[in-house]
Amino acid sequence: MPTKETITKYFQSLQNDICKQLEKADGKGKFKEDKWERAGGGGGRSRVIQGQLIAKGGVNFSAVEGELPEKISTALQLPPSNFFATGVSIVLHPISPMLPIIHMNVRYFETVDKEAQSDYKKIWWFGGGIDLTPHYVIKQDAQFFHQSLKAACDRHHDSYYPKFKKWADDYFYIRHRQETRGIGGIFFDRLGPEEGITKEERFEFVKQIGEVFCPIYLYLVARNRDKTYTEQEQNWQFMRRGRYVEFNLVWDRGTKFGLDTNGRTESILMSMPPRANWVYNHQVEEGSREAETLSLLKKGIDWV
Amino acid sequence: MPTKETITKYFQSLQNDICKQLEKADGKGKFKEDKWERAGGGGGRSRVIQGQLIAKGGVNFSAVEGELPEKISTALQLPPSNFFATGVSIVLHPISPMLPIIHMNVRYFETVDKEAQSDYKKIWWFGGGIDLTPHYVIKQDAQFFHQSLKAACDRHHDSYYPKFKKWADDYFYIRHRQETRGIGGIFFDRLGPEEGITKEERFEFVKQIGEVFCPIYLYLVARNRDKTYTEQEQNWQFMRRGRYVEFNLVWDRGTKFGLDTNGRTESILMSMPPRANWVYNHQVEEGSREAETLSLLKKGIDWV
Repeated sequence: MPTKETITKYFQSLQNDICKQLEKADGKGKFKEDKWERAGGGGGRSRVIQGQLIAKGGVNFSAVEGELPEKISTALQLPPSNFFATGVSIVLHPISPMLPIIHMNVRYFETVDKEAQSDYKKIWWFGGGIDLTPHYVIKQDAQFFHQSLKAACDRHHDSYYPKFKKWADDYFYIRHRQETRGIGGIFFDRLGPEEGITKEERFEFVKQIGEVFCPIYLYLVARNRDKTYTEQEQNWQFMRRGRYVEFNLVWDRGTKFGLDTNGRTESILMSMPPRANWVYNHQVEEGSREAETLSLLKKGIDWV
Repeated sequence: MPTKETITKYFQSLQNDICKQLEKADGKGKFKEDKWERAGGGGGRSRVIQGQLIAKGGVNFSAVEGELPEKISTALQLPPSNFFATGVSIVLHPISPMLPIIHMNVRYFETVDKEAQSDYKKIWWFGGGIDLTPHYVIKQDAQFFHQSLKAACDRHHDSYYPKFKKWADDYFYIRHRQETRGIGGIFFDRLGPEEGITKEERFEFVKQIGEVFCPIYLYLVARNRDKTYTEQEQNWQFMRRGRYVEFNLVWDRGTKFGLDTNGRTESILMSMPPRANWVYNHQVEEGSREAETLSLLKKGIDWV
């Protein structure tokens, strides 16, 4: 069974690997690293890039531990416990509005017996996901994105893609706008032990998600990076980034949890765009590419 | 006793009056109005200005009514009730970083007996406040601002200013940044019947707050509108606006309540700045005006 040490080490190497690939793709920007420690235990490595392709991108690794808040241990029907959590979290805001915003996260959580009781029911699970937020939805790209995720999921379990695709539609939803954040992707949480699925297999799946991130994003970048764009298109990008801010600050449970529990604010809010605009009651022109994009920010679209 | 009709009419005329004064001060921008209706009952008039002084300003009036959600009636220990709520809400984002962001709100709430029970305990209260968010804190201006609010409060009750000043410090607090939103001001809620204070007196106080808004803000504008500024100072303004977004979307209970209860999103989010920037882990230079400003974004400063 993969231990927390194995998983932590893997996530660290995943962060290294992704940063290397993104620097290469950017061609100019280099990641700057901040190491930080958490008062209650553990810490992380936050890395941020500003380049000629990526306006602002964060690739975060963290491994934290400490006492599980009583509220949570009670909810999980556990005695007083310690917890351990590690993960990699990424948000990239490209310079060009012709390139999509992307988010990826893989994480592992476990509880640790505080008093070494023999009947202690240890809990562990994996979570994560990848979702894409194009400023302009391109149907072929959306199809490629979802097909790639489906292929990655299908190697592990037939139920994964349909279930996790729907989960992403429901999770990445800006309720007050009645819009999805983008074209979704996959989202999963609390993937623990289940009949016929071992911890090794769960870990292999999570590794796969971590490893398809770069090929998928860099393919989309390659297809669209040389497209020119107008000032009007850039303004649309700034407004779409405003929606990204709204989702993250109002609805994203991860952000909320982090800010509520005195997480490292600068690492949590690495997901904020470098610039966002708000225009009161902005209306798109009928038949425009902006209108088409809005019409595709809906739950339940079958992109595959 | 002022009725809900009287109060509503007053708030409408307050909106008219403030819009007129702001248009005059701006000298170019004109308010555009959107009338809207609420599915559950009532509606409002949202007015937005984009001018040569104000980059984006919203002056909202609303008067809504309907069934009180059971959760709330239970919390208030009421039988199933209807509610009525009316108010004026303002946020102004100036173009120049030398001018402060300002927010003002006055509101009235009451419950209405659904079944005309004779022992029905009707509930009413007023709420509101004014707070200032300078991009650069100027001590004299901060002093003037608080002294003006204190004078307005003191005409009504000695306890108002100290109590409502502290309330503003606590309310307009960005917990995850350990910063106040600006230099505070006054905030009050649930000003209902109290020994020796009549509803007339509460209403007179709220009117006063509505009416000091323009003189206070326009005086600060007059003092600072001709100051020149650099690109670096404008960038600082965009970052401070980012904090404003963070407060409103993460911590502001009014915004949260509105978005949670299917309020009119465009009216609620009129408070968003036209443009905001986020810079990862931005550090201010020691001894700079930016550093001084940060040092003054603390609770409990006695500006008077």
